[in-house]
Amino acid sequence: MSESAPPPENPYAAGAAFVDGKYVPMAEARMPILDWGFLHSDCTYDVVHVWKGRFFRLEDHLERFERSAEGLRLPLPHTREAIGEILSECVRLARLRDAYVEMICTRGWPPVGSRDPRDAESRFYAFAVPFIWIADEEQRKRGLHLIVSSVQRIPPQSVNPVFKNFHWGDFTRGLFEAFERGGETAVLVDGAGNVTEGPGFNIFVVNGERVVTPDAGMLEGITRRTVMELCEECGIALEAAPLPAQALREAEEVFLSSTAGGIVPITRVDGQPVGGGAPGPITGRLRDLYWSKQEAGWHGTPIDYS
Amino acid sequence: MSESAPPPENPYAAGAAFVDGKYVPMAEARMPILDWGFLHSDCTYDVVHVWKGRFFRLEDHLERFERSAEGLRLPLPHTREAIGEILSECVRLARLRDAYVEMICTRGWPPVGSRDPRDAESRFYAFAVPFIWIADEEQRKRGLHLIVSSVQRIPPQSVNPVFKNFHWGDFTRGLFEAFERGGETAVLVDGAGNVTEGPGFNIFVVNGERVVTPDAGMLEGITRRTVMELCEECGIALEAAPLPAQALREAEEVFLSSTAGGIVPITRVDGQPVGGGAPGPITGRLRDLYWSKQEAGWHGTPIDYS
Repeated sequence: MSESAPPPENPYAAGAAFVDGKYVPMAEARMPILDWGFLHSDCTYDVVHVWKGRFFRLEDHLERFERSAEGLRLPLPHTREAIGEILSECVRLARLRDAYVEMICTRGWPPVGSRDPRDAESRFYAFAVPFIWIADEEQRKRGLHLIVSSVQRIPPQSVNPVFKNFHWGDFTRGLFEAFERGGETAVLVDGAGNVTEGPGFNIFVVNGERVVTPDAGMLEGITRRTVMELCEECGIALEAAPLPAQALREAEEVFLSSTAGGIVPITRVDGQPVGGGAPGPITGRLRDLYWSKQEAGWHGTPIDYS
Repeated sequence: MSESAPPPENPYAAGAAFVDGKYVPMAEARMPILDWGFLHSDCTYDVVHVWKGRFFRLEDHLERFERSAEGLRLPLPHTREAIGEILSECVRLARLRDAYVEMICTRGWPPVGSRDPRDAESRFYAFAVPFIWIADEEQRKRGLHLIVSSVQRIPPQSVNPVFKNFHWGDFTRGLFEAFERGGETAVLVDGAGNVTEGPGFNIFVVNGERVVTPDAGMLEGITRRTVMELCEECGIALEAAPLPAQALREAEEVFLSSTAGGIVPITRVDGQPVGGGAPGPITGRLRDLYWSKQEAGWHGTPIDYS
């Protein structure tokens, strides 16, 4: 009897990507340096996650991706159905039950001699990697420590945050400021001093049975929409309205929403404890519902791994 | 006698790049999709040009690149001398006498599990391609048609334009607006309605023997600095000061400065002719001096092609 060989390593274990019409292991996923998606950050993207073998709100993410591309005048080279299939195949190849799945459309680049973006042919990239958490396990349990940054979010008059984009220079500045001030993440303000969003998340404050989230200057997150639906289901009043920074410091509870981890409590703002300094009951109730409904198949699209 | 083979094609004829410590033909120059230089536009760059075998103001560009990297907290993996040598080698390999030479430093990416930019290892890319002109030959001769965009330049409170960056979403919007309004390029305003800069250029107005250029909200271009030196040499008064959009429409002459073409006249603003509608005498004088002094070796670093 021959020795049995160990099962072959899956070359896609660290993730699978779709580049130039081919599927490749994540470590080989490379793009041309000349792509204006890089050189001018002229691109859009979206991220959908997979949890226990199901996409969560896949159609909503695909629909927003199309709206972003249209808003930025980036012709998508694939239909919605084709993109859904590409994302599924990336997850399948990587054999991931919990995944962070990103789709990107870039400008490409115009032929030599032209500087006109209308002469460029847009390009599509996608990848699936193991699920990414916006906060580690300890932080999710005890709550994140947030600062209200002095950096202003890039205003909609310059770059429209509704069209999801990689213009993160302001977020990166805010993050470094947070680290210096003893925080772990940052929320940015607008020119009027109202909070907008943080790097990869929307923000919410809770007072009594009332939740408030900013209404302008930020991405309309799909997880933000999910929070709205969960509040409605629970009979909790939710309002989208201007949110002064001071309201965060005075709130009973603060939490964030993100595709990269759902609903995460924030228990310190600018070094001061929020409420009692521990995750609050409304946050906990919404978070538990977020996960339990998802695991029961809510807004889910099962992936065929066969 | 054997047939003589044709001389081998230079594989670097379309340009040469430096990626991951190796020199490669431009068509093979690719970067990892996971690099936050792309996914968060977390990077800086600079562009120096080569004209008739000499870098123009190489030290000034290297110095600004270092300042940008420091301002954005991107540790440069190479010394100034090493970067100068890499750029020279790219030009040499491509055998270019006139070249557009770009250096880029990106964040890289943190190890799996971290979202902290301090855990990332920055990366360096460079390339040399044939000289790029911001305007084609006809446009340079008759003057560019500019619009004053309704899009606002990303403010310094969000992303500091002094640290050269790829946050071009506002410029791209401005360009599409220009095309729709019959223009060829755009200049963006700040929140107060003063002009700042356009995609890849600084702007100047001329009235009599007096030149004005914006003083805030824009990159401090090396070619802008060159214009200042040329004005001084010619005894032309130059002032950096807030410049209302209306001043462009009422100017006798308007021109732009860019590494991608030097000094270029603008002869229409918002569809109306500037001055007489033809390039003006001060613009012409500065442009001629820009090229003649450069060809005489001013601020030049010769490249050893052997």
